Amino acid sequence: MAITVGQVLDALIAPVGKREDTVDTLKNGNPEEEVRGVAVVFLATYEVIGRAIASGANLIITHEPTYYNHLDETDWLSGDPVYERKRALIESSGVAVFRLHDYIHQYKPDGIVDGMLRALDWEAYADPDKTLMLTLPEDGGRTVRSIADEIKRKLGIDSVMVAGDPELAVTRFGFAVGAPGGRSQMAYLRERDIELLIAGETNEWETNEYVRDAADMGMNKAMIILGHQKSEELGMRTVVKLLRDAFPGLPVDHLELPTALRRI
Amino acid sequence: MAITVGQVLDALIAPVGKREDTVDTLKNGNPEEEVRGVAVVFLATYEVIGRAIASGANLIITHEPTYYNHLDETDWLSGDPVYERKRALIESSGVAVFRLHDYIHQYKPDGIVDGMLRALDWEAYADPDKTLMLTLPEDGGRTVRSIADEIKRKLGIDSVMVAGDPELAVTRFGFAVGAPGGRSQMAYLRERDIELLIAGETNEWETNEYVRDAADMGMNKAMIILGHQKSEELGMRTVVKLLRDAFPGLPVDHLELPTALRRI
Repeated sequence: MAITVGQVLDALIAPVGKREDTVDTLKNGNPEEEVRGVAVVFLATYEVIGRAIASGANLIITHEPTYYNHLDETDWLSGDPVYERKRALIESSGVAVFRLHDYIHQYKPDGIVDGMLRALDWEAYADPDKTLMLTLPEDGGRTVRSIADEIKRKLGIDSVMVAGDPELAVTRFGFAVGAPGGRSQMAYLRERDIELLIAGETNEWETNEYVRDAADMGMNKAMIILGHQKSEELGMRTVVKLLRDAFPGLPVDHLELPTALRRI
Repeated sequence: MAITVGQVLDALIAPVGKREDTVDTLKNGNPEEEVRGVAVVFLATYEVIGRAIASGANLIITHEPTYYNHLDETDWLSGDPVYERKRALIESSGVAVFRLHDYIHQYKPDGIVDGMLRALDWEAYADPDKTLMLTLPEDGGRTVRSIADEIKRKLGIDSVMVAGDPELAVTRFGFAVGAPGGRSQMAYLRERDIELLIAGETNEWETNEYVRDAADMGMNKAMIILGHQKSEELGMRTVVKLLRDAFPGLPVDHLELPTALRRI
């Protein structure tokens, strides 16, 4: 029996319930369309859209925006050659593109965080009541550097950025994926008894400088910055599992991205 | 004859004229106070405030905020141990702290950009009518990588982040210091005939992804990201020169900062 775009989206929305105040909308496509395959991505780049289409998928579930701004506003991009070519690819192929950002962060537990904890094999560290708080075994002898090394190995990152002392001992830490904003990141460090915040993306003049000052004051505070993509991408495996469970037989694949930047 | 804080600030404001709609305010101190020495910094960190005071300065001119947010709002930080200790240092020492952000960017030419072009020895590349546009000599054979290498050497940076192809040939490029926002950065790349944008700080889901897509479409576009601090810090030498010229005999020094982050 045919599965429609609308049915797949309903399955993704069901854990939260329909919301109106959300950026999670269909950027292209038709809810009545039959789905032949689903590509799950961190961000629908031009390159991965092509890969998804070539794989036979006609529905892309993307965590981050398609058109270079949080609201996917496009008026300001009218006539822009990059935007126009990307839109032409999407429209001419007929691929449906749905953003799944707000809903998945509202799953209980947060679907991105849960997926990242699984990818890092850190479920045992998590406090079930506070999923962004992680407590290490007492006898761990862990440091900021050893945690950074573990993340690099498990997520395939060649280096991370650190504020504070890499040799600082860590017993409890927080994991704030994505870019929740400086005040949210600083609240983590302030309100919870943690030595380390693992962050996705920051504004340099906000959390970075707060941690720099705290460390220079001799406080036991540090931060590891993974980059936005690496802090969330494997969290989208939660979507793959959900859809494979809901629609056995429907091809659903996670297409991973290279990072947008390289260090030279 | 005594020079007051107010007189120094008037000299910094004079090239633009007094504005009300600005973040450039006195965060601590008294305009009537006599100035014994001026410390010019990119950002008034806890550590550099201590260095400034130890050097005998009692006026700090800082380009970026003191309290971890653009407007230097402090209500949300009340009781925060990092904020309270930084504020106590500033208040107990009596050091005056003035932010010079909006005014210096409104100098003609932009004082930060002008200072950066001097630090990079790039004044000859600049279009006098468009100071953020730079044109290389025709026979240069320059690439993104060779420009990145030149910047690293001249600014003392060990690595930069690049979107697009490092081997892309570059004849014209733009230099957007600081964090002017994604739409402004993308407008540079769209509206001007440049291959390369040198940026300070970006949001990952905005300009980074625009350049990634453009490069994947085969367009001749690339971006080098310096980090906010490294893209502006030496631009504050403009302030040092202005104040030394205006107040001969007054000690005025630029105190440079280490970066807040290190790569491990």
